[in-house]
Order: sequence, then structure tokens, then C-alpha cells
Amino acid sequence: MKLTKIANQLNEDISKYDNFLILPHVMADGDAVGCCIAMARYIKSRGKKALMVMEEKVPYIYSFMENSCDIEIYTPAKTYNYDICIAIDTGDIKRLGKRKILFENHISYNIDHHKTNDGYAVYNYVNEDVSSSGEIVYEIFQKMKASLDHDIAQALYVAIATDTGGFRYQNTNKKSFIISARLMDYELNIEKISEWVFERTNMNKLHLFENTIQNIRFHCNNRVAVSTLRTSEYMHLDVTDEDFEGLVNIVKNIEGVEIGIFLRERPDKKEVKGSLRSNTDNVDVSLIAKAHGGGGHARAAGLISSKSIDAVYTGIIRSLNEVYKCTE
Amino acid sequence: MKLTKIANQLNEDISKYDNFLILPHVMADGDAVGCCIAMARYIKSRGKKALMVMEEKVPYIYSFMENSCDIEIYTPAKTYNYDICIAIDTGDIKRLGKRKILFENHISYNIDHHKTNDGYAVYNYVNEDVSSSGEIVYEIFQKMKASLDHDIAQALYVAIATDTGGFRYQNTNKKSFIISARLMDYELNIEKISEWVFERTNMNKLHLFENTIQNIRFHCNNRVAVSTLRTSEYMHLDVTDEDFEGLVNIVKNIEGVEIGIFLRERPDKKEVKGSLRSNTDNVDVSLIAKAHGGGGHARAAGLISSKSIDAVYTGIIRSLNEVYKCTE
Repeated sequence: MKLTKIANQLNEDISKYDNFLILPHVMADGDAVGCCIAMARYIKSRGKKALMVMEEKVPYIYSFMENSCDIEIYTPAKTYNYDICIAIDTGDIKRLGKRKILFENHISYNIDHHKTNDGYAVYNYVNEDVSSSGEIVYEIFQKMKASLDHDIAQALYVAIATDTGGFRYQNTNKKSFIISARLMDYELNIEKISEWVFERTNMNKLHLFENTIQNIRFHCNNRVAVSTLRTSEYMHLDVTDEDFEGLVNIVKNIEGVEIGIFLRERPDKKEVKGSLRSNTDNVDVSLIAKAHGGGGHARAAGLISSKSIDAVYTGIIRSLNEVYKCTE
Repeated sequence: MKLTKIANQLNEDISKYDNFLILPHVMADGDAVGCCIAMARYIKSRGKKALMVMEEKVPYIYSFMENSCDIEIYTPAKTYNYDICIAIDTGDIKRLGKRKILFENHISYNIDHHKTNDGYAVYNYVNEDVSSSGEIVYEIFQKMKASLDHDIAQALYVAIATDTGGFRYQNTNKKSFIISARLMDYELNIEKISEWVFERTNMNKLHLFENTIQNIRFHCNNRVAVSTLRTSEYMHLDVTDEDFEGLVNIVKNIEGVEIGIFLRERPDKKEVKGSLRSNTDNVDVSLIAKAHGGGGHARAAGLISSKSIDAVYTGIIRSLNEVYKCTE
């Protein structure tokens, strides 16, 4: 469907029907939470009932927006009365988790920016050329000539800002800035929003950070930096796989470092997970990863190994010693 | 001077004269470095000589822009031949350091956004209502109908992005986003720029981070978090006062924490420096700071004390125990 068509359809349906459910994907991120809050609040402003139904509770860092609309955690036993169901930022119907059932036998919308989205709803609008679903929802609102308010603008800003990594990722584009500029008309408190979304942390994450720094070792005349986390170092912490994701960047971004490597033991799967990053065109880390059972791109690669963390470490350093023609 | 007037004056002078010096302030930040690179490169594109003269070398995190224009570190013994001298982002002539002498007996420009700027040049344009000098230089270029290129746009983007803390500080405004959107027309590599400017670090800074996390202690049912750095913990590191500036935010931004406090020994001055931050309207940290010889605002206060770090710590916690009506 084209943008104008989906906007017109939704506009008509909001006029015609009274009860709406809005669904973000499981493990909702800032884009999903922000878009759904914006949509639910907008529909309510049109005098209709709109309930945002989540799989889990709103993540702490987005909880400052919780009062912008009606939000509930899904209760399978409950009877939901609604005419229309809208999934936003959900690339696959499976990503609705247990709430997939809510999508059946109802007028449904699927508004998203994931390339792999197969159009699982009655009305689908998928545009992969934007940074975030936030950009799409903003444009749908524009086509509908929707009146926004502070809370809607704030939610859309959070959607765009989080999916672009605070305007730092490659997907940041001209439109991300243009829409953000327009949202500033609603007197957003950028400092407060950014603090919640980008700065808030917890002790579990801080301890991962602390241990990662503590374990940094250098090789090949400080051009290679490696850090490791062993099970014993984090098994007492309440962390998920996601919490480890940025840690390789700590070693990668040290002054003078060309290759950053992060290895950790995954006790549940009895394996070692490795992330390799290159800051230079001279070293293709996908080749190093491949030599140790992994793969990826020249500047970002990874591996999973059933060997011990020490064996993986030694093997990678041996490969890099060859590349850099250094001995240790 | 008005924007149009300074733009016209500069435009004429670039046509009329051949040799320009461009000066950022001492300890140049991203705004100063970015603006000066943009100006020097633009003047060179007009077929004139433009030399950017720095007090110190370009900071590592901005070094990826070094080839965008001619840059030198100031050599007092050298004879500089120039007609016009342009200081940008320099709120006070003293902030030119040893290069102050270059400003004398020449046609001089002062382009800045610091409120306290007293207009020390022949031609002055100071606008305190913008986020950064980057916004001003962009607008001057616009008035001049200047042709920009990738490197000029990149330098101006760095200026705006750094002075707004990556679009996170309170000074971020609608115009910051509008100008950034326009600069995107020059095919900026946002990911590369952001990585250099915001992510690169060094082991000294990482060790400060590590020790700050390691030393976090909680009080008053985890609503108060305190961290400390003693001389013995950092005296071996190559760090400056600036490197300690963000550390209080680590404790302040922990989930559930209302009051974040960071104390450190300053051996050179035999004193303890304390930073206090509040996330709640219920506790005014300026009152706590005042009770221990400091002051500030309700949400951000500080103190300098000649007592021992342990005495300061105990005193502050005693005050906060009273506020929170808790005993430990």
C-alpha cells in the first residue's frame, strides 16, 4: 500500500470504529514503544478507545512516557473488545508473541520498516528506506493532517532517536533530522528525554562494563585489544544476551587500536561467543573469524566456538600475529 | 553587528585580501575545531591562503578532519604573513593564549556564541541564542551564498553535534536539527563521524570509569549512590581535570537512584571536590552542598572541602539520612 492510501484508510477507520488495540513487538524497543504510544494517544484524541497491549512491561528507560496513553500487559484469560488491531514496528507476526491471537479475525494494520516484513495484516505499509517506524508514523499523521501534542511528539522523537542510536548510526538520514526539527515545535525537553533513553543504566550493566575494562589486554604493539568475560565473572549478575552487545565497542574504540575483540563464555550453551571489529581497511576480520569457525564482514565479524575461551583467544592472537607479522 | 552585515563584510574582505589566519580557542573543542576548519577550507576554496593556527595539536577525536585545511601549531618565533585574523568560538581574547599577539594590529573578526564575549575584535558577531558557533558559521555562509563541500559540511556538523552533546543537551534546538538536515546533503558519514567524536576513548579514561564503578556504594534504601576516587587510585593515570567531569553521571543514572554523588581527592590542591546531582524535585542538593561548604542548583551542586574524603563522605550521608529520615 502507498503512504497516502494507508493514511486515508486509517483515517476513515478511526472515524468509523470505536475500539483499537495497538501492539508493539515482543521485547519492545524505543521505536516500537514510541510509535505505539503516539498512535494510541492520537486515536484517543479523536474520541475513541485505544489500548496499547504489551507482551512485557514498558522497559524502565521508556517508563517516563507511560502516562501518555492507556497501556496494559497482555492477559491471555481476558476478553479484549476491539474492532481494529494495529501492529507497529513488528517485522513478523511471530514477533507479537502470545498476542498473535489478537490479530486473528479482526481488521488489522501492519506498519513497519523491516525489509523482511511479509505483509501479514489486512492493511500493510512497509517502508524499508527510513531510519525507524517513527518516521513512518509521523508521515502517516502528516498525510492525515493529524493534530499532534507534546506527548505524541515526544513519543515519535524517542522512536526516531533510539532507532538511529541518538543520530549516530548509518541509518540516520536527512529525514530523521527534518522530522526531529518539526517535533521540536512541541516543546520537547531534549535533555530529559535523552537522559532517560541514553544515559540510565543499572548496576548489572555497570559491572559488565567494569569487568570488560579490567580484562583488556593488548597485542601486536597495542594495535590489537582483546577483552574477555568468563562465566564466573558475570553469572551472579541479572543480565541478558543484549547487555553484552555493545561491549566489543569498548575495546574497538580505544585510541590507537586497530582491531578490537571481545570473547565471552556462554555457560547455557557451553560455547564461546566472539565479536571482532576492525578500524582499518588493512585487516579484514571476517577472514580471522572464518579461520576460527565464524564469519561476517571486513569490519565486523563474529564466531561461536565449542573450544575453551583460552584456546579461542590464543588461536585468534596467533592469526593476528601472522597478519601483523609480529611475535609475542 | 547583525548577521547580514558581518557576512557582507567578511565576503568583501575575502575578495579583497589574500592571507587569512583562523584561530580557535586554547584547548579547542569540537565546536572551535569544526568551525575553524570550515572557515579555513571555505576561504581556500575562494582561491585565498587560509591557515588555521592552534595553541595545541588537534585533539585525537577530531584528527580525522585534519586534512580538510591547512593547520599548524603556533610557533612564537615564526613570522606569520597575513591580512586578516578570525577568532571563532573564543569568548574572551585571553582564550587565544599565546596567539593573542596575532590579533594585534590587524583586521580582526570575532565570531562566537558565548554570552560573556565583550567584542574584542574589529568586527564582532556574537549570538548567544544558538547551540554552537557551528550554527552561526553555517548562517554566515548562507548569507554569503557560499558553496559548501563535504569537508566543510562535515566540520560544521561536528561543531553542532559536539556542542549539543550529540543532540542531548538542553541547548539542542529546532535550528540544530534543521541545519544538520541541510548538511546531510553533502553525504556525511554520520556513523564514522559519531564514532570518532563520541565513542573513541583511551585506557586512562577507561580506568577512571572502572574505578568509579568499583567504588559505588548505596545509602538510604538505594536512593542515594556515591562513588569516590582517591589519589592513590588515579595518580598513575595520565588524566586532566576534564576527564573527571562526567563521572558523577554514572552514579546519578543508575536505575532507582534519586541522588548521585561523586567525590574525589585533588592531591595538587590538597582538597576534596564533590559533585552532587538530584533526579527528584523532593531533594534540593544545593542545600546539602551548602551545609558542607559548597553550593549550586537544586538538581546540580558542588563543593570543595579541605576535610578528608572520608569526613566529607560521612557528613554528606548524615545530611541525606536526615532528609530521607533513614538510619544506617
